[in-house]
Amino acid sequence: MDETHFRREHRRALVDDTISGASQLARQALDSLIEYTDICSAGDIDGLRARLLEFAEELQFARPSMAPVYNLVQRWADQVERLEADDVATFRQHAATAAQELSDASIHALEQAAGAAAGLITEGSVVITHSFSSTVRDAFRQLQGRTARAIVSESRPGMEGRDQARYLAGMDVDVTFITDAQLGLFSGHASLALVGADTVLADGSVVNKAGTYLLALAARDHGVPFYVCCESFKHAPFHPRGFELDEMSAHELEAPRHKRITARNVLFDITPAKLVDGWITEKGVHANKRAADPER
Amino acid sequence: MDETHFRREHRRALVDDTISGASQLARQALDSLIEYTDICSAGDIDGLRARLLEFAEELQFARPSMAPVYNLVQRWADQVERLEADDVATFRQHAATAAQELSDASIHALEQAAGAAAGLITEGSVVITHSFSSTVRDAFRQLQGRTARAIVSESRPGMEGRDQARYLAGMDVDVTFITDAQLGLFSGHASLALVGADTVLADGSVVNKAGTYLLALAARDHGVPFYVCCESFKHAPFHPRGFELDEMSAHELEAPRHKRITARNVLFDITPAKLVDGWITEKGVHANKRAADPER
Repeated sequence: MDETHFRREHRRALVDDTISGASQLARQALDSLIEYTDICSAGDIDGLRARLLEFAEELQFARPSMAPVYNLVQRWADQVERLEADDVATFRQHAATAAQELSDASIHALEQAAGAAAGLITEGSVVITHSFSSTVRDAFRQLQGRTARAIVSESRPGMEGRDQARYLAGMDVDVTFITDAQLGLFSGHASLALVGADTVLADGSVVNKAGTYLLALAARDHGVPFYVCCESFKHAPFHPRGFELDEMSAHELEAPRHKRITARNVLFDITPAKLVDGWITEKGVHANKRAADPER
Repeated sequence: MDETHFRREHRRALVDDTISGASQLARQALDSLIEYTDICSAGDIDGLRARLLEFAEELQFARPSMAPVYNLVQRWADQVERLEADDVATFRQHAATAAQELSDASIHALEQAAGAAAGLITEGSVVITHSFSSTVRDAFRQLQGRTARAIVSESRPGMEGRDQARYLAGMDVDVTFITDAQLGLFSGHASLALVGADTVLADGSVVNKAGTYLLALAARDHGVPFYVCCESFKHAPFHPRGFELDEMSAHELEAPRHKRITARNVLFDITPAKLVDGWITEKGVHANKRAADPER
């Protein structure tokens, strides 16, 4: 496969994947970069550096709404920019190692963040969550013998909640499985709401699977704290105004066919920072001081 | 069919019908009473009156969460209690006429309520609604040439939103069809939220298809007024505390099969009165003074 073709194909794989989460896609981008350090045909260090950075930029903007893809690839590009080596082969090796280390750091950060979230789940807690999140799943894995129950919503139309329920049940967690429409009713039965995030925006608002905002509203109305848990690579410099939410084909909705009916399938919604009681990352729990304000 | 069998069958039809709305079931109960005035074998007026009232009570409590069934049958029972006639045949006739008049009054009230709701839909309005409501549908029918658009959510698991979308599109209304999970996002695109109700409780809180509460929360957060439209027969003397919400089989959710996973399908939720900006009945729009309070 020639280089141009390789780059186009790897970028396209990133664009077309509507299943994987943002962190997983970021690691996939790093994997593509590792492969590229090996096959890129540039003959000298400066030429190689230029082409690696070119490809990094292509990948970085393949999924503009996914902060970790942007952040991890940017972190790598910064390193490659400064990288020095005696020969091209060593440069390739160091560039690849840097990508691998970032990928490992991303997994480690996720586990650390999940561990911090687990600390909020006390014995007998009922945790309500929406859609699928590997961080939420890992938080349950790190309960160290404490027992907690989960309420999981299905997350139409992708039904990622089914996987979340299956994973949690597989860890011996009792799961109540509900429609998204019942999130309001069941928020009243929960001790805390815990969700992952695709991206946390500069003002602390949260981009996550559509319906998360509704859960946050219902949790607030019931006085149930709402926490967002994700590695800090998901924190983005973007602001909510002008942030574009991915929209996918709406054929899964099986809307009635009629020239006046338009079905919409916006994958994410934005939960404003005022509804978040705390952001959890690998660095710990960052409480929202404004959310604690009785005037909120 | 003997009388006992007739009464049991008619009561069961009311209990088992999970499709029809509360008003429709109330009229079905009145139809059963009309038929019973004809076939009831009592030989004198007092005996007939006693048996009619007995059957009325059986029907009245067949669907305890549906106010119009209770209210319309109670209204009829009050009339039968006081009814005087020269002979049994005339008594039968008057009792049947009273039921028919109540049924007609119920339809008339629905149309009047819808007309009052239509008055709130100005040219170019975008109305967001949840699930199916014949009152909301009739409000669009009474727009008298004004053009308004609708955003309709599907209402898992029954998918009553599909029927609502089909009806509205059939009246040349442009409809945006969304998942329930997108109600938060799309509330921001609406000029007003308008829903029907199964029951309005004594404190003004609203029993309606699960998800209505989420729409109300999102509308409030976006500053979009939230109106509930239904005939006053749906206003009930019950209080929300202790009010039992119907729950149906959850097999439609197709939850993963696992001994630790329990799927739930509570049909309705309760929207607290504080989130309602106005109640619309055949008597007009009753604004919620507390909702207008900036301290709310």
